[in-house]
Amino acid sequence: MLPIQPARFLEDLHNLRGFGAAGLGKGVVRPAYSEADIAARGWLAARITEAGLRVHVDPVGSVFGLAEGPSLLLGSHSDSQPEGGWLDGALGVIAALEIARAAREAGGPAVSVVSFQDEEGRFGVTTGSAVWSGSLTLKAADLLVDRDGVSFGAARASMPGRSEMFVDPSQFSGFLEMHIEQGPVLDRESEAIGVVDAIVGIRDMKITFEGEQNHAGTTPMQGRRDAFQAVSRFNTLLADRFANVVTPRTVWTIGHISLHPNASSIVPGRATFSMQWRDGDADRLGRMEQIIRDTAQEVASSGGFELRFGPMLGLEPVKMDTRLRGALETAAEAEVPGRWRVMPSGALHDATNLSGLMPVAMLFVPSIGGISHAFGEDTAEADLVTGLSVLAGAVAALG
Amino acid sequence: MLPIQPARFLEDLHNLRGFGAAGLGKGVVRPAYSEADIAARGWLAARITEAGLRVHVDPVGSVFGLAEGPSLLLGSHSDSQPEGGWLDGALGVIAALEIARAAREAGGPAVSVVSFQDEEGRFGVTTGSAVWSGSLTLKAADLLVDRDGVSFGAARASMPGRSEMFVDPSQFSGFLEMHIEQGPVLDRESEAIGVVDAIVGIRDMKITFEGEQNHAGTTPMQGRRDAFQAVSRFNTLLADRFANVVTPRTVWTIGHISLHPNASSIVPGRATFSMQWRDGDADRLGRMEQIIRDTAQEVASSGGFELRFGPMLGLEPVKMDTRLRGALETAAEAEVPGRWRVMPSGALHDATNLSGLMPVAMLFVPSIGGISHAFGEDTAEADLVTGLSVLAGAVAALG
Repeated sequence: MLPIQPARFLEDLHNLRGFGAAGLGKGVVRPAYSEADIAARGWLAARITEAGLRVHVDPVGSVFGLAEGPSLLLGSHSDSQPEGGWLDGALGVIAALEIARAAREAGGPAVSVVSFQDEEGRFGVTTGSAVWSGSLTLKAADLLVDRDGVSFGAARASMPGRSEMFVDPSQFSGFLEMHIEQGPVLDRESEAIGVVDAIVGIRDMKITFEGEQNHAGTTPMQGRRDAFQAVSRFNTLLADRFANVVTPRTVWTIGHISLHPNASSIVPGRATFSMQWRDGDADRLGRMEQIIRDTAQEVASSGGFELRFGPMLGLEPVKMDTRLRGALETAAEAEVPGRWRVMPSGALHDATNLSGLMPVAMLFVPSIGGISHAFGEDTAEADLVTGLSVLAGAVAALG
Repeated sequence: MLPIQPARFLEDLHNLRGFGAAGLGKGVVRPAYSEADIAARGWLAARITEAGLRVHVDPVGSVFGLAEGPSLLLGSHSDSQPEGGWLDGALGVIAALEIARAAREAGGPAVSVVSFQDEEGRFGVTTGSAVWSGSLTLKAADLLVDRDGVSFGAARASMPGRSEMFVDPSQFSGFLEMHIEQGPVLDRESEAIGVVDAIVGIRDMKITFEGEQNHAGTTPMQGRRDAFQAVSRFNTLLADRFANVVTPRTVWTIGHISLHPNASSIVPGRATFSMQWRDGDADRLGRMEQIIRDTAQEVASSGGFELRFGPMLGLEPVKMDTRLRGALETAAEAEVPGRWRVMPSGALHDATNLSGLMPVAMLFVPSIGGISHAFGEDTAEADLVTGLSVLAGAVAALG
């Protein structure tokens, strides 16, 4: 077993929380390239150097701590949501730091550390690891803009100490990421660890029903082509039709809707809404897509609406590497026998991008109340330490 | 029969369209107190003077053409929607002008004319006639602001030639307003005239379901309190429950919806939407309100949502005066036997406000395709002349 020091680990985790502390509970405001984010990465680089690793800040600002020669890579991200918690990303980074330190102190195995930049998507989606993995070119990334119109290119230029070189991924034998669950399952079941079997795939597209805008007083119900009614009918039919296709882990969401002209006295002539669905199985995602398209077409045809589908964002499900995942399962059973489970990750992580470069695996610790992307995000410190121990056990076994 | 001159009537109607002509079909852009609106009212005042009536512009800019002694008042409004048609309001004003002229030429009866200000609600709702009728105080009206932050008080101050006095309504024996239907019924049924029996009452309120905002990937369907789903369920249940209460003329609309945070990857935690319903019968409006409140409560209780109702805007249905309405019906049957109907007005009109001051009645001519509040609004000229003839016939009979 590696000589991990839980107190040192927790102290660093709380230290990192000081950068961008929201002043509300343990919340942090540390979006990518903010002053707090850049300062936090500077602090992390100093810790990495202290640990005897070589600091490398890549062109987009992802901070690596490199062991010599071939190594296992551990990490996550240290940027936060605009209003975020102290553990989302930070936990995986500081756990990686502690395990790399302990491994050096024990004389091996070789462990490298990373904190990716802009995982939370101020500009894109998991932008730093997407660029590193090649799924997004640096040129395309530079053109992405945040809500205030700032470009990724301008933002990364503001970060000091970057190298012009990306890290060569061939030096890593695999990637392990510890993360909070960001959902309610482990907390509700009083379990300590989730070993991820797959990061779910996502399909996301905008759908538009175009009906007829009318006066809400003078247009009888019978002749209306009310675009909101089309969305409501589509939503209701969809739930019925999904029933025989989905599993309890499948999710779908209409999270965005825009009516035109969106006024109480006008029958809405147009409704555009987001349809997003996630599942660990690519076939199921495809079957759901067919149901969505057929149901929307049926609503449009029967009600006299014009139907438009926007471009579909598709991210394929990513299965975790069997060997790495097995090491996490063995370590979990040793640490908390019977109090862990295998589960999918419903959220995207940097591990999704890295799966194209090397074997990857992930483990979760509970999120109290399932809360994340909010100041109230938290995990019991005992659970944080359990996660650290399981990760250390897996690293030792993978040697 | 009064010696109305259809050609003169149509010529003036087209002349009025020149003020604020949109350059697209017959569309006009002539919102209250715009340069075009003020110029159009100046032109109208000159026509009124030519007709031998006394011009009186009241403190809010409503333009009256007053006959001497007791008279019947005819009119509507000459301001338009931001993108409006050439007939909405203008038709009733120019028809009033032509009938007043013809009546003077014939030596009676005494007919006065009015074009109310801001019927289209740049600031309030039927603002000019609301102030005249006392349902809105001038002091309160002056504080109303348009979308650009301009106050009603500042806008009316910009209009020249206003008197400090309001017109004494006791000189009028009644008010007749001709208007386009702004709905599809007459056009669809190939009928020429609608005699209004009542202007429907309106209830309008905002409803909010507050659930729980969550990550759309990590939150299982089963534990969600998705506020959009609450709105959709409410909407579906409502249609079922209204079935035994409503008539084919009852309407209800969800025209506005606002989700929070309105992002495709987040289960919406809050949905606020508008619920508006209209009917000519006050009891039915009340029964519908009870169903709305009960259904929303049921959705909230069963799904774990917090429910909030905003303040309710209520305008009572207004029945048309039996004698005035009878005169319109008799004239319609004489002019277009069998090609007219009695119908409610689903839209508000200045007549709603005037019903507190004097007997009122209204008649409609067809709107092609039911289109209104748009540049494409139109009515066949033969139908415009038929409307003028019916109105003249009623005025002659009411003498």
